[in-house]
Amino acid sequence: MDVGFIGLGQMGKAIAANLVRAGHRLIVWNRSAGPAEELARLGAEAAAHPRDTARAEVLMTMLADDEAARSVLLEQGVLDGARRGLVHVNLATVSVRFAQDLARVHRERGIAYVAAPVFGRPEVAREAKLNVLVAGESSAVSRVEPLLEAFAQRIWPLGSEPERANVVKLAGNFMIASALETMGEAVALARAYGIEGARLLEILTSTLFASPVYQGYGRLIAEQRFEPAAFPVRLGLKDVRLALQAGEAAHVPMPFGSVVRDSLLEAIAAGEADLDWAAVARVALRHAGLR
Amino acid sequence: MDVGFIGLGQMGKAIAANLVRAGHRLIVWNRSAGPAEELARLGAEAAAHPRDTARAEVLMTMLADDEAARSVLLEQGVLDGARRGLVHVNLATVSVRFAQDLARVHRERGIAYVAAPVFGRPEVAREAKLNVLVAGESSAVSRVEPLLEAFAQRIWPLGSEPERANVVKLAGNFMIASALETMGEAVALARAYGIEGARLLEILTSTLFASPVYQGYGRLIAEQRFEPAAFPVRLGLKDVRLALQAGEAAHVPMPFGSVVRDSLLEAIAAGEADLDWAAVARVALRHAGLR
Amino acid sequence: MDVGFIGLGQMGKAIAANLVRAGHRLIVWNRSAGPAEELARLGAEAAAHPRDTARAEVLMTMLADDEAARSVLLEQGVLDGARRGLVHVNLATVSVRFAQDLARVHRERGIAYVAAPVFGRPEVAREAKLNVLVAGESSAVSRVEPLLEAFAQRIWPLGSEPERANVVKLAGNFMIASALETMGEAVALARAYGIEGARLLEILTSTLFASPVYQGYGRLIAEQRFEPAAFPVRLGLKDVRLALQAGEAAHVPMPFGSVVRDSLLEAIAAGEADLDWAAVARVALRHAGLR
Amino acid sequence: MDVGFIGLGQMGKAIAANLVRAGHRLIVWNRSAGPAEELARLGAEAAAHPRDTARAEVLMTMLADDEAARSVLLEQGVLDGARRGLVHVNLATVSVRFAQDLARVHRERGIAYVAAPVFGRPEVAREAKLNVLVAGESSAVSRVEPLLEAFAQRIWPLGSEPERANVVKLAGNFMIASALETMGEAVALARAYGIEGARLLEILTSTLFASPVYQGYGRLIAEQRFEPAAFPVRLGLKDVRLALQAGEAAHVPMPFGSVVRDSLLEAIAAGEADLDWAAVARVALRHAGLR
Repeated sequence: MDVGFIGLGQMGKAIAANLVRAGHRLIVWNRSAGPAEELARLGAEAAAHPRDTARAEVLMTMLADDEAARSVLLEQGVLDGARRGLVHVNLATVSVRFAQDLARVHRERGIAYVAAPVFGRPEVAREAKLNVLVAGESSAVSRVEPLLEAFAQRIWPLGSEPERANVVKLAGNFMIASALETMGEAVALARAYGIEGARLLEILTSTLFASPVYQGYGRLIAEQRFEPAAFPVRLGLKDVRLALQAGEAAHVPMPFGSVVRDSLLEAIAAGEADLDWAAVARVALRHAGLR
Repeated sequence: MDVGFIGLGQMGKAIAANLVRAGHRLIVWNRSAGPAEELARLGAEAAAHPRDTARAEVLMTMLADDEAARSVLLEQGVLDGARRGLVHVNLATVSVRFAQDLARVHRERGIAYVAAPVFGRPEVAREAKLNVLVAGESSAVSRVEPLLEAFAQRIWPLGSEPERANVVKLAGNFMIASALETMGEAVALARAYGIEGARLLEILTSTLFASPVYQGYGRLIAEQRFEPAAFPVRLGLKDVRLALQAGEAAHVPMPFGSVVRDSLLEAIAAGEADLDWAAVARVALRHAGLR
Repeated sequence: MDVGFIGLGQMGKAIAANLVRAGHRLIVWNRSAGPAEELARLGAEAAAHPRDTARAEVLMTMLADDEAARSVLLEQGVLDGARRGLVHVNLATVSVRFAQDLARVHRERGIAYVAAPVFGRPEVAREAKLNVLVAGESSAVSRVEPLLEAFAQRIWPLGSEPERANVVKLAGNFMIASALETMGEAVALARAYGIEGARLLEILTSTLFASPVYQGYGRLIAEQRFEPAAFPVRLGLKDVRLALQAGEAAHVPMPFGSVVRDSLLEAIAAGEADLDWAAVARVALRHAGLR
Repeated sequence: MDVGFIGLGQMGKAIAANLVRAGHRLIVWNRSAGPAEELARLGAEAAAHPRDTARAEVLMTMLADDEAARSVLLEQGVLDGARRGLVHVNLATVSVRFAQDLARVHRERGIAYVAAPVFGRPEVAREAKLNVLVAGESSAVSRVEPLLEAFAQRIWPLGSEPERANVVKLAGNFMIASALETMGEAVALARAYGIEGARLLEILTSTLFASPVYQGYGRLIAEQRFEPAAFPVRLGLKDVRLALQAGEAAHVPMPFGSVVRDSLLEAIAAGEADLDWAAVARVALRHAGLR
């Protein structure tokens, strides 16, 4: 299939590479040129202007946040220059409100819109084992499923309203953030009684909490290893904020969300914005006067 | 081995039965007679008085809370009548402060004290697959390990200070409680956008959160099935309170612990003290005006 | 002085009336015509278009929120048509970020910008006893002080950066919201032990907490009288959100702010968005199963 | 009247001195001898043993906490040796549960029990301007009112159940603690935007929050003056804990109480247990990376 692809950060690059490997023809664009050249070496075409990507059958975007997406898609006119019948697949974690705006904007332009945010860190994307949440008009979803299969471990359909995929993604990231805070407080309690954090987490993450999130992040916390950051504190705060905003818009209080937000803010105030967001677990230690 | 056993609730009964099955000679006592008679049918001896259990080589107790343990062990004189060289294995979740008191009381009487709280619901106890946290003087721990093996999937040694096993147990229960609150808030968010709680939890507990705690409790929450209660709200509140008290004694703030405590209190105020503590996940729904 | 005035809600109308009474020539505009006609009967001129108000020496605006202000000032071109040397006095509670944007926009157009948010309910505005927080370039502040005196009990200068007045206003509203939540929780505790809320608040607000906020709102809470709303829950939520956003932008965690936000959201979910925001004190009662 | 008095800390000494001044015959006891000697110089009699104080018509006690009261009243046998018809007036802030226990213990011994906790710092006690909360059987309350008048600005009767006076006292201290946290967060927000804490508090505590608690503590916070401590962090934590426990026993969640508890714990972990509890306002500053 002819696929336009915008946004070649760590995640986008890994996904685009898997699409090329699966035999699709990609035309790619990125704000900085380096990553597009990398993809070109794998066989993709580098677009001269982002608008060029919208002349493919399918446009995939993986942009950092609402602002970046708004700037590229709307202000730089990518959607205005779209080919008739284009399906736009948005892989990014955007706000629920922006998801709703985007759905409307696409409808007005006669472009099909599919939200397809993913769970998984960059190495999982490279291995083509992402969990893909997908929502949008069913015929559009069907058309792009072969593409999603090129990088998904599993595809989770969530119906025709695109923002639902974003809500599930935000709920999931909220749950990860809560797991980080939980481990932080539990480790602080254990440490105060002379038990190593690594020992506590070994016991709990190999039994009751034997899941990827607790084991993966538990290891980072046990080893106090927060660099390089697969997902930094500052982006973690963004996603928790988006979950809280989605909650607020629907009158859903989320007290755990607020506590985590405060811990993330405090980590940023302590100069840790660029560490992996697992570092938020250290905030509880500092509160207890430990380390 | 000759083993005294006090406290034949759901957990105690299952553990004692496994000890009998493993070939140990048990002399058992329980406040109400029924469970002792059940054990007698399996081959245990029913003690006439709790003191009689302390004439065995090892005394195991599984009593509901600090008060029950204090009453039986100290006020009814079980420890006073203990045989020389007795090892007391306390399987219950007690407060850290009471654990420290008990360690001292045992030292004064020349009785070896081993704390061995367990992770696992009654059905796990029946299958002899408990995770056993064990701490105490190493020679005493070695002597009782063959007993623990009769009902453990795995034994986790935590050194010579008994209260450390209790701290790990409380940290674990705090983590479970936090997982319940997390799922409650995430489900409320999803529901407000038209996504079924069962769907959200299916996605997350089969991927990022594929662990026994999230899957087991996730199922109860998805099905809103809170009876019969394997572990009721009122005992959940007790354990979260013990975790907070342990934190307070060591100057460890645990904001998630406080939020969960409030949700458990609110569930009790709503008449749900005897539901399974997974019911705490409904509090977040009510706050959002859902259901 | 010639004064343009936009925004004749309860607060704006009272302030504008005081300006007319003090002898100033007002040209007023409001989205709906009624309030402008009322002012015209007092001697003000009703503008045909909002732009007409910007031909005065000073433009005062009291608009509901950022969106209303953005729409009137920027999109409807009020600032574009401004007379040379105009001083714009913004009396509204806007977000810190919008305050910063506005300051920049004014600078670019050569218009002096003064932020002058006020403390006080409508009846206080009518009595010309508002506390006015004022910040902006000092020559502009000096020019408009005679106007502020027409409705102020006291004017509190806060330097040349306009957003500082907004920060103080938001900090103050956050403090009021926290006082409401505090009274709610204290009343719930008292009620659970058979002490009437009115009795508790009588004791505390006539002694330790004998201040306008505690006495005024304490009376509403004691009498459970939340209609008519001088300041509704929904606007209270807006201001608490603005305080939290201002905190977030500067990495300041505000856990009390988050708790109050959740209580306000829960009140809205319960259908109380249009009650006086003192009604938030009832949320704590409901959590305790009271009333 | 003949009055026994136990507990001559800062508060007790000031109250006892006012009773002597008002012409009552005091027999006083204190754990350390110094304060009793001071009172003796004013005309009181120093008791050889705490039991001697219970031979007066009225026994007043002002002991630091439940443990101290339990030790002196019950374990050292003061109540056992009480004269027939004794009225015991307990001026201390005790837990609601202990208040209920004490009421029962007194009933069993035929001693009248009056709870009379007070609001006011030591200097207020010296000026005989305390607010006294009083509850107990009405004839007993009537008998001791002339004594209370010797040090009260006002007496607030709360009915016949003694623990109600304790609940109001704890609710009041919870409200003070919440005011401290509120000011801390507001000052952090202001400081992050370049506004001095002293300026913010000057504006707010001379207008909306013009009350003794906000002005008195606001001054300490503005000046960062936390020594000497009229009421230290460690006792503040005790009272907030008692409020939370009273809430828990009656199923009343108090989220503000939990946040304040965490801030107090963090202050203690930072080595500030003996500073005035207004120092808790600094915790919010540290979270924001300020100072």
